[in-house]
Amino acid sequence: MIPPDHPRHRSLVTRERLAECARRGVVALEGLTAHGRGEAFDYLIGEKTLKSALAAEKTAAAILLAADRPVISVNGNTAALAAREVAELQEATGALVEVNLFHRTEERVRMIEDLLRTAGCTVFSGPAEQLLPLSHDRAWCRREGMFAADVVLVPLEDGDRCEALAGMGKKVIAIDLNPLSRTARAATLTIVDEVTRALPGITRACGSLSGEEREQLIATADNHYFLSAAIAEITARLDHALD
Amino acid sequence: MIPPDHPRHRSLVTRERLAECARRGVVALEGLTAHGRGEAFDYLIGEKTLKSALAAEKTAAAILLAADRPVISVNGNTAALAAREVAELQEATGALVEVNLFHRTEERVRMIEDLLRTAGCTVFSGPAEQLLPLSHDRAWCRREGMFAADVVLVPLEDGDRCEALAGMGKKVIAIDLNPLSRTARAATLTIVDEVTRALPGITRACGSLSGEEREQLIATADNHYFLSAAIAEITARLDHALD
Repeated sequence: MIPPDHPRHRSLVTRERLAECARRGVVALEGLTAHGRGEAFDYLIGEKTLKSALAAEKTAAAILLAADRPVISVNGNTAALAAREVAELQEATGALVEVNLFHRTEERVRMIEDLLRTAGCTVFSGPAEQLLPLSHDRAWCRREGMFAADVVLVPLEDGDRCEALAGMGKKVIAIDLNPLSRTARAATLTIVDEVTRALPGITRACGSLSGEEREQLIATADNHYFLSAAIAEITARLDHALD
Repeated sequence: MIPPDHPRHRSLVTRERLAECARRGVVALEGLTAHGRGEAFDYLIGEKTLKSALAAEKTAAAILLAADRPVISVNGNTAALAAREVAELQEATGALVEVNLFHRTEERVRMIEDLLRTAGCTVFSGPAEQLLPLSHDRAWCRREGMFAADVVLVPLEDGDRCEALAGMGKKVIAIDLNPLSRTARAATLTIVDEVTRALPGITRACGSLSGEEREQLIATADNHYFLSAAIAEITARLDHALD
């Protein structure tokens, strides 16, 4: 048990929750380590949504609402941490929700689909094919799902797949706490924010933006700006870290 | 399988190795996440030993060689990643090697002790008592081991235990990739370096420093300097990250 007076109680409890999902097989053991990387970057941005990330979340809402075939791609960590938040975003955008895993087995896909359905998602399922230009398990997706999408939201995605999707001409919206990652650089738009803050941020923006605001956000979106702003925030915090 | 042409192949292979140790029970699932936090900070310092960390490793060698009762405290992650490196440092310093776990069960203690012995360590074992001023499992240690030590080397330690040991008047040498952590701030000396680079760095210094050099390193050791230097290195890298 984590003692409640432990100064990092919240972070440790989330860590235990993910560990519990790993015991059940929803989260890959490698996903626990990936989560730790995210924790470190979240710590460096102050565990809050940056102003620039809020702007990125609004832009993501505008892009998803303007899309013809938007898809939210969900992996084990996203499902474990934010299944309910995915369901709410699906309701706000009408996007397909599709499970795509780095450490892929049919059993894990089914478990994660069940978890998402329990949280209220309508899951786009069915047989997957190796359609993406990648050499391993991440090539799998569904022909009428991610393969046909014009906009794909990838929370917590691997750099290879993000690059492959962008290379296929899709708009890729990434949620990635590491502003230096290949995913963050390859995406059309990167939200440098923790997934349980970022998804509700997009959902809220879907309900509040006028058509004109949405058009302006899409016209002025600049991934380099969003990454630079996150990096500037980290360095500013580091400069005063030992004060 | 991680494809060999993946740009982060080495990091992903280490991650799989830890995951394998987690399947066997040597590494706690929560330890996988902690490793991910370390990965992120290692990435930010460039995955190499900083000049300031090399100086800290030399200082650690001097402190360990001058100690009356030095102890190397080993947890699951350290054993999984660096059992051989612990054995070599033990040979160079004559320190006791003692297993102390955050997520403690007798079975895990035994597994980790076996792993260390196989790697060449002489393990200081036997019944533990709740001797440290901490409210949970981390209070456990051995009366003639960590409890009686004047110098304790804690690779990958939790902030609570680091503070408790320092509060007991011991010199605490921490190996921690996060220069902002409570562990890093509470320690007498922090080495901001990856554990499989830091331990051999200390071992090498044990064999190369003269008595005079050792005295000078101990006299001038400044934890604040070592942390500031690591932070400065990170911010310098971040300033050019998007060039």
